[in-house]
Amino acid sequence: MVDFQKTREFFHIPEKLTYLCGNSLGPLPKGLPKNIASQITDGWGEMIIGGWNNAGWMELSSLIGNKIGRLIGAPEGTTIMGDTLSIKVYQALGAALKLNPGRKIILTDTDNFPSDIYVAQGLASFLRQGYEVKIVNRMDISDELNDMVAVLLLTEVDYKSGARLDMANLTQLAKSKGIITIWDLAHSVGAFPVNIQKVGADFAIGCTYKYLNGGPGAPAFIYVDPNLISQIQSPLAGWLGHAQPFQFSLEYDPAPSIRRMLVGTPPIIGLSALNYALGAWEGITVEDVHTKSMELSELFIEGVKSNCPGIKVISPENPMNRGSHVCLEHPEGYSIVRFLIENSVICDFREPNHLRFGIAPLYNGSHDIHRALEVLIKALEYKPWKYERHQTRNFVT
Amino acid sequence: MVDFQKTREFFHIPEKLTYLCGNSLGPLPKGLPKNIASQITDGWGEMIIGGWNNAGWMELSSLIGNKIGRLIGAPEGTTIMGDTLSIKVYQALGAALKLNPGRKIILTDTDNFPSDIYVAQGLASFLRQGYEVKIVNRMDISDELNDMVAVLLLTEVDYKSGARLDMANLTQLAKSKGIITIWDLAHSVGAFPVNIQKVGADFAIGCTYKYLNGGPGAPAFIYVDPNLISQIQSPLAGWLGHAQPFQFSLEYDPAPSIRRMLVGTPPIIGLSALNYALGAWEGITVEDVHTKSMELSELFIEGVKSNCPGIKVISPENPMNRGSHVCLEHPEGYSIVRFLIENSVICDFREPNHLRFGIAPLYNGSHDIHRALEVLIKALEYKPWKYERHQTRNFVT
Repeated sequence: MVDFQKTREFFHIPEKLTYLCGNSLGPLPKGLPKNIASQITDGWGEMIIGGWNNAGWMELSSLIGNKIGRLIGAPEGTTIMGDTLSIKVYQALGAALKLNPGRKIILTDTDNFPSDIYVAQGLASFLRQGYEVKIVNRMDISDELNDMVAVLLLTEVDYKSGARLDMANLTQLAKSKGIITIWDLAHSVGAFPVNIQKVGADFAIGCTYKYLNGGPGAPAFIYVDPNLISQIQSPLAGWLGHAQPFQFSLEYDPAPSIRRMLVGTPPIIGLSALNYALGAWEGITVEDVHTKSMELSELFIEGVKSNCPGIKVISPENPMNRGSHVCLEHPEGYSIVRFLIENSVICDFREPNHLRFGIAPLYNGSHDIHRALEVLIKALEYKPWKYERHQTRNFVT
Repeated sequence: MVDFQKTREFFHIPEKLTYLCGNSLGPLPKGLPKNIASQITDGWGEMIIGGWNNAGWMELSSLIGNKIGRLIGAPEGTTIMGDTLSIKVYQALGAALKLNPGRKIILTDTDNFPSDIYVAQGLASFLRQGYEVKIVNRMDISDELNDMVAVLLLTEVDYKSGARLDMANLTQLAKSKGIITIWDLAHSVGAFPVNIQKVGADFAIGCTYKYLNGGPGAPAFIYVDPNLISQIQSPLAGWLGHAQPFQFSLEYDPAPSIRRMLVGTPPIIGLSALNYALGAWEGITVEDVHTKSMELSELFIEGVKSNCPGIKVISPENPMNRGSHVCLEHPEGYSIVRFLIENSVICDFREPNHLRFGIAPLYNGSHDIHRALEVLIKALEYKPWKYERHQTRNFVT
């Protein structure tokens, strides 16, 4: 029996708050502000420019990449940090298209996070080479895999419903048709075990501010199949991806390793914060976290079914087919979420009428589930259908 | 007479150090570690996901963009932060090529920072549409401006010699031939006054870790001519550049403002650090800084000429033709830089035999110049030609 007491104490949850929004932004590790201040003081402060060699800044992108690699079943030297998830989608997609010249379709699904789709559309339109971004229903993905498709770009867990695609099967099916696969693990990493190498994916990408608690806008990661690393060409040929960045030659010679996916100067302060946050995983495995997540989700879903008439559970019944958030539906979803938040239960709303509850056992326990249910029941009794929707911005993201 | 006492006190320079490397990485503002810890505690810590709306995170990229805009003569709403300089080069270049369909040459010069050239080469090779990156000597740039050239991509100040190009003239000449101009202001911003709108540049980009002291890997900025903003298409179509990011529509509709140059989720901790560092500019203008920089550079150059036989001054004589660093040359440049650093005068070395001394009046004064000269003279007397070059990495970047 794993004890999450230690990991719960690692995080700061404001008093009386039930925080069920870790699928969007994980909370602050308690010791992080002091630690980051001291990293800045000792590194940038005392070494200034010397920090690049002496404070380990040059190695930080790989060091953290390897730590995250261990959470997704990626071998050492196949995962590296940098930039944002959108930039990593672009990099992976650009490299993937070059691996499959002649094919013109980028296949994705309507439930993919729109941002990934935007990046693909932007790239296709920029290239002007007849590329088409084909967006199909998730149930039709398998049928659409054929030898016209260059790249399959999918997010394993649907950011709305929480439904999880069968990554292993889809990847194998795609590979059998000569299609390059790119998996967005934004809602997977730190939520449940992933075995990206075993699955056989060509590329994987993800952000680190959700279940890895790296903070707002924390750097993203990219994984590349070790057999592909030396063949791929990133469309973003930045100097830190050069084999010899300090030779300042005028010819681009990409590093023979995963470092070729580096672009510009790495964001040291952001990386240092993320590195500290990953300390939460000491002594805990992602399997432990997943087991607890399923237990808490089941408790929540059962509670909703038994006590919340009018609310529909949108997430799949089988916990192995879900990520780590639970999605509910109610015609007055917006007002209910507002009521929950005003009563210190932080969850979020997605159009048209979805309520999302993120469950992150590193800091969430059954007390959070009981409290969420209690307020949800109150909301339904109180029927607070008084809130006007704010059209221009989301009150939580 | 401007008093730099206040700005000097703003920064932490380790005891007995003469720091002349601000052209590479500016030093730490003294209050930054405490301030950043408290921003993290109050924002991420207390608001968690709510910080996006309530801690001003959504507006930070524009807010800081406008602050930097004021240093480069850019009107409100034309400059925005994000990612790294390499990404901003790619974005500007991609957008620029689309503005000039039919033309195939990206013109740059051999003294441009190699990273900018790599990005251009990477983009040209990625597009496979016959684009050519033409790299000419800087003295030949004017002659090469013709109606075959799509984009002129230049860095105003040569990162080695410190020589400054005539941005106003080159821009006007380029425009008269229908060429789109992109200026890299990495060594300009915060070093001397720039009037980017008056100059008529189409795009400008820059980093913020040199004379703006934003810290290692601080976010970059991009400026777009206000008349162009609504016409340009970024190759990187990220969701925060969408007109309505929270509508999660499947169609990309770029924001009508400079926000269309945003890509993914902004790096809040890095932006917050930079925002604090920009506080150094309160009560000081970039004109004040430039006047003092020229005074200190002249003092240094005169000292070298009078007391350092065998050392050649590479930077231009006329201070208006230089950036804010002075470049010297000596056959044993590498050993001399090692000696200087070991004697606490931090400058840096660039192949094949260049010594660079960055002068940043926000924290540098005449005492730094005297001390640098003193140790330089000692180095020449001592002739410490004993250092073997480290081939695989630069000891300072």
